Amino acid sequence: MNAEIVSIGDELLIGQVVNTNQAYIAERLNSVGVNVVRMSTVGDRVGDIVAIFEEAWKRAQLTIVTGGLGPTHDDVTRAAVCEFFRTDLILDEEALGHIHKRFETRGLPVTPKNRDQAMVPRGCRVIQNIEGTAPGYFFEREDRCMAVVPGVPYEMKGMMERFIVPFFAERGTGIVIRHKTLRTTGIAESILADRLGDVSDLFGERPGITLAYLPSPLGVRLRITARSRSASEAEESIAVVERKIREKAEKYIYGENEEELEEVVGRMLAERGLTIAVAESCTGGILSDRLTDVPGSSRYFERGFITYSNESKTAELGVPPGLLAEHGAVSKEVAQAMAKGAREQARTDIGLSTTGIAGPTGGTSEKPVGLVWIGYSDRSQTLALRFNFVDDRRRIKERTSQAALELVRRVVLKIG
Amino acid sequence: MNAEIVSIGDELLIGQVVNTNQAYIAERLNSVGVNVVRMSTVGDRVGDIVAIFEEAWKRAQLTIVTGGLGPTHDDVTRAAVCEFFRTDLILDEEALGHIHKRFETRGLPVTPKNRDQAMVPRGCRVIQNIEGTAPGYFFEREDRCMAVVPGVPYEMKGMMERFIVPFFAERGTGIVIRHKTLRTTGIAESILADRLGDVSDLFGERPGITLAYLPSPLGVRLRITARSRSASEAEESIAVVERKIREKAEKYIYGENEEELEEVVGRMLAERGLTIAVAESCTGGILSDRLTDVPGSSRYFERGFITYSNESKTAELGVPPGLLAEHGAVSKEVAQAMAKGAREQARTDIGLSTTGIAGPTGGTSEKPVGLVWIGYSDRSQTLALRFNFVDDRRRIKERTSQAALELVRRVVLKIG
Repeated sequence: MNAEIVSIGDELLIGQVVNTNQAYIAERLNSVGVNVVRMSTVGDRVGDIVAIFEEAWKRAQLTIVTGGLGPTHDDVTRAAVCEFFRTDLILDEEALGHIHKRFETRGLPVTPKNRDQAMVPRGCRVIQNIEGTAPGYFFEREDRCMAVVPGVPYEMKGMMERFIVPFFAERGTGIVIRHKTLRTTGIAESILADRLGDVSDLFGERPGITLAYLPSPLGVRLRITARSRSASEAEESIAVVERKIREKAEKYIYGENEEELEEVVGRMLAERGLTIAVAESCTGGILSDRLTDVPGSSRYFERGFITYSNESKTAELGVPPGLLAEHGAVSKEVAQAMAKGAREQARTDIGLSTTGIAGPTGGTSEKPVGLVWIGYSDRSQTLALRFNFVDDRRRIKERTSQAALELVRRVVLKIG
Repeated sequence: MNAEIVSIGDELLIGQVVNTNQAYIAERLNSVGVNVVRMSTVGDRVGDIVAIFEEAWKRAQLTIVTGGLGPTHDDVTRAAVCEFFRTDLILDEEALGHIHKRFETRGLPVTPKNRDQAMVPRGCRVIQNIEGTAPGYFFEREDRCMAVVPGVPYEMKGMMERFIVPFFAERGTGIVIRHKTLRTTGIAESILADRLGDVSDLFGERPGITLAYLPSPLGVRLRITARSRSASEAEESIAVVERKIREKAEKYIYGENEEELEEVVGRMLAERGLTIAVAESCTGGILSDRLTDVPGSSRYFERGFITYSNESKTAELGVPPGLLAEHGAVSKEVAQAMAKGAREQARTDIGLSTTGIAGPTGGTSEKPVGLVWIGYSDRSQTLALRFNFVDDRRRIKERTSQAALELVRRVVLKIG
């Protein structure tokens, strides 16, 4: 079954908002065998919306529409839906009850704008909104469907998870699509491609397989896709290709699918009963932020120090002022002293540190913007690695946090 | 002048990658008076790509294409471009020289895959790639143009800034589009809409003005747009509407356009010569990360403490163990002691703290997931505010960091 996703909103067309809904919806539809073949975005004008409804309805069996269902004057999707299906509005009592309940529990009055949201196109199945006030609509006409959901991400997600995904999972589509992604870091895309060699060698005689390289500042992801009539066949194809890739690039692969490096490192620490403390200079908190994004991270993340000034490096981590004066804050010696200091002060098994020049100013010819030292310390060793990231301030912070987490992974797993 | 943006890549259609390029391109085109009327995404198949080229070419004077120009087998955009323009490939010496230079400075060999990227469609103007290896292509045929650029964001951005934006800025389009966004936080969308009232009262008799509400977890942005024949007229319209909005909602407006709250707070602190230290529990580093995202933040951000464990709250911030035992870590008393402790330990003017239950576990009926206390301390006062965020772990961290920054803004500016 093929689907198209249509997003509506001038804020998208002028580039004020990044569309994260399309990726979410696509991923969820894919998981139940629905193939997304096109995504489109149009503005808040009834004529443009009706035009794209007509195109999408012709091309794909399912059209998912998001956005423009809010309570303000710039929300015109409902009017376009009525025009497209040649219908009018009727009151949905359940939606109205839901809106009343929502506002009353918060002690807020129900405004006429809110009440109007319970008016829905006649002839649709109403998708109730648990996370907000605007209900969604579902239309089924012969072999075609259209689902209309709000653009607010968590409201859209609620409707996807409670209604749309289960609906198509139950109905079935005949084709099984399976993806698996291997996540690498610390190796450039073209070097990885040369290492893996020709894709036909990786795939052998198996049909319906594709391999995609997805580079990002934090590493290259390798996505293996198999399309098949049966789940077992698709999964076996993926397993064969995965094995061949791992033979050639194992040490760079830190995780699978949606797994972030902080989850991999966190699980590794938790399994081994190890604790960690972090001392951040150039990363300014992102390293701790990533580590604590993982539920249950309090088992291994003990504390963090964001020692931006030289004084704080001395006061919190015991870095000798003489060391700072001799080598400068961005140096191998200071990175090591920070990692060791964090570990000793917090009495953890591991200390991890970052010090570098995030820019845009502060660089010199000897120590340019992007120069970073990452320190690691445990009971048996203290070391530091040098990196040179050519990028902007935010990206340098992100890349440094990734390299620091990868350093922990490689040291703990003893990967050379 | 109207434009369409076409993104190419299976990774987008399966939802593995969020498309940030479309928003960037749209914003930049808008700034030079080019109106984006539609954005589309299709997969890595020549037939699908040629089909959307034909549609876009009919509808809009400019088509911007991104993605699928890389060195690996799944990059087929170049072939589709050749088919659409009925042309073949020729070697571009400048691109080849650039590829050689790029690899040689890094001490890497030039692979045949890389060399092949210097083959470009005959009859296009080549857009050189300073950030990577794949050149872009620019076609102009009568009153229609097409620009084809890589999907890697920083390579695409380099080509936009050096070639595409200047090209259309010079050519001119006759219509001036101006946007201004007012950023609010701490007020719900529907309550803000009621406060602002009917848009026709805000706009008066002025034509070509629109107002959009853009809600996000960090606040609601209000975007005013004016389309006009002259820049001065468009700017005046925006100024009039802005004044009316400010009269009705001034205290919630912390910034304008792309300005983040951390920049506003940072500038406020720098202007007043104030320094800040941060003690984070539930936010785990995101608050410090945001503060240090601002270039030059070392002038006011002295240090941060991520005191995840109770022991660290006592050891680093001097929070009395008895206070923790009596009230619990998530309490008004501990939030205040953390803020005061951070300020005193770092000897800064301001101390800011967060303590709460980010979830998904750890909540109780008395202290549910999402309960957060934010503490603030300066020489003359120490206070704490209670929040209840109904959201997931990441979102609770983000919302808390926003509320903490807003608390500093309101206290320093004495906003009631």
